[in-house]
Amino acid sequence: MNEAPPPPAHAVLEAAARIAAHAAVTPVLRSQTLDALAGAQLAFKAEHLQRSGAFKFRGACNAVWSLPAEQASAGVVTHSSGNHGAALALAALTRGIACHVVVPEGAVAAKLANIARHGATLWQCAPTIAAREAMCAQVQADTGATLVHPYTDAAVIAGQGTAALELLQAEGPFDVLVVPVGGGGLAAGTALALQQVSPQTRLVLAEPVGAADTARSLQAGERRIDFVPDTVCDGLRGTLGAPNFQVLQAACTEVIVVDDAATVAAMRLLWQVLKQTVEPSSAIAFAAVLAQPQRFVGLRVGLVLSGGNVDIDALPWSAA
Amino acid sequence: MNEAPPPPAHAVLEAAARIAAHAAVTPVLRSQTLDALAGAQLAFKAEHLQRSGAFKFRGACNAVWSLPAEQASAGVVTHSSGNHGAALALAALTRGIACHVVVPEGAVAAKLANIARHGATLWQCAPTIAAREAMCAQVQADTGATLVHPYTDAAVIAGQGTAALELLQAEGPFDVLVVPVGGGGLAAGTALALQQVSPQTRLVLAEPVGAADTARSLQAGERRIDFVPDTVCDGLRGTLGAPNFQVLQAACTEVIVVDDAATVAAMRLLWQVLKQTVEPSSAIAFAAVLAQPQRFVGLRVGLVLSGGNVDIDALPWSAA
Repeated sequence: MNEAPPPPAHAVLEAAARIAAHAAVTPVLRSQTLDALAGAQLAFKAEHLQRSGAFKFRGACNAVWSLPAEQASAGVVTHSSGNHGAALALAALTRGIACHVVVPEGAVAAKLANIARHGATLWQCAPTIAAREAMCAQVQADTGATLVHPYTDAAVIAGQGTAALELLQAEGPFDVLVVPVGGGGLAAGTALALQQVSPQTRLVLAEPVGAADTARSLQAGERRIDFVPDTVCDGLRGTLGAPNFQVLQAACTEVIVVDDAATVAAMRLLWQVLKQTVEPSSAIAFAAVLAQPQRFVGLRVGLVLSGGNVDIDALPWSAA
Repeated sequence: MNEAPPPPAHAVLEAAARIAAHAAVTPVLRSQTLDALAGAQLAFKAEHLQRSGAFKFRGACNAVWSLPAEQASAGVVTHSSGNHGAALALAALTRGIACHVVVPEGAVAAKLANIARHGATLWQCAPTIAAREAMCAQVQADTGATLVHPYTDAAVIAGQGTAALELLQAEGPFDVLVVPVGGGGLAAGTALALQQVSPQTRLVLAEPVGAADTARSLQAGERRIDFVPDTVCDGLRGTLGAPNFQVLQAACTEVIVVDDAATVAAMRLLWQVLKQTVEPSSAIAFAAVLAQPQRFVGLRVGLVLSGGNVDIDALPWSAA
């Protein structure tokens, strides 16, 4: 399934039309204090205020509503550490179809609750890729449900690109967009959105040092995904998908690798100054700008705050 | 100084024009999850995203820009547990004049830092009304600065009313507005805004049980302000001002008294679901709706999230 081709760039525009009735147009937040700190003009696309609490709803919604009626009626299935699972559950709910979510043991409690709340059936499995793919295959065989992969699915990639599309339409032009990268759904979707409507805008990805497979893959010219993730960014532990890599390589995407301490410091600033309860996987984009300010000084920088599904009883700065 | 008359209702419209160049038009946030919980249609005016982190900037800005040039040149002075001090400091900065802020010992660290950051001179005094008024008088005598009282000043009251004005213009009509009440600046300003543009909208105030002087005063038909405040809502410990009482009494305002546990529970929901780092004094408005749902069921309810200057290292739910 990872070998499916990526969507064409114009699929992002089609996705925007398809999800318009269901997804929120999230606000864009600015702060003079953070601008002064970064030495740049920052615009934060508040996707943690998207339905289901993350940008993931865009891709899931596009995938669910792209299915022919008969195929849709058998439901959808996915595996996800959290945000994609919740997003797909809610997307299935908007179409009135069943949703099955395979989740690894040990996933964040707040995210599991978020999935169950939207009426999906949860299937727990061991936290290995083999175990989750086996259970997904079993559910598919038993129910006829369609697999919607969290980040390699073409409709998911196109849907994720609509966040950048909205940001550009509302507050553009931008010199640079900065988004987090895990499996590469948001990253590839953003690259396609830029290709379609703003090819002069650079794309910079922010990736945790403990899961820097995208940086290594783009450096090597081929996917290098054999690693054990170790990062506070629980949304970015996935491995770069094949179609995602293909899009990012073609787009000459830059990557900034960020250590967890810098991400947590940036997260604190976003909570204190921007007053948004974003998760570490969101804060890493801002951390990347602060880590290498010379790459952004004086520029118009758009950042996607990707999600806000954080456990407020286990904040990373009180864990020490 | 507490005996000055309140402003006329149309002063709110004049304030809106006066501060337009300086204050942010804050977003209005909605959540289907919170609507379902309350059984009402809720619209949250995000004044914690206002400049200086609270609605207080509106009133301070209106007061600073209402001064004749010569008087303004000697600067302004106030006493404040925090948000008004920071707001006045920033407002003075927008006009390029000096600002002196008298603060009680023991005030929230994050709020003091917020004041100092905007270039004001801080003067610490004992945490009694007599001590702070004595020090204010001393600063006035020494510098010629104009006192801008945090909530009885007519220009401050009019300025605070502009938050409701914006909320009504952007998302109205509403059946009810719910705002927190401490000294009564926001409460009285909101009452005047409703009188001016939406007289059919009810005004409900949310007040902590440990500082319920407004509820007692409206019940008694005269100000009853002799009490020692005891509440987690550090922004609502002030005593109801005389002009504020006059406006609220004339407007037949309702008050819901809320205990701190309910406020903290509502604050957690706003952090988790709305994903906003609001302070307890903001959350109390939502807590009031949840505490007495029968008064709001099926209605269009506007709430003002008044501020977000909270110490994220000392959250009320981790103190237990």
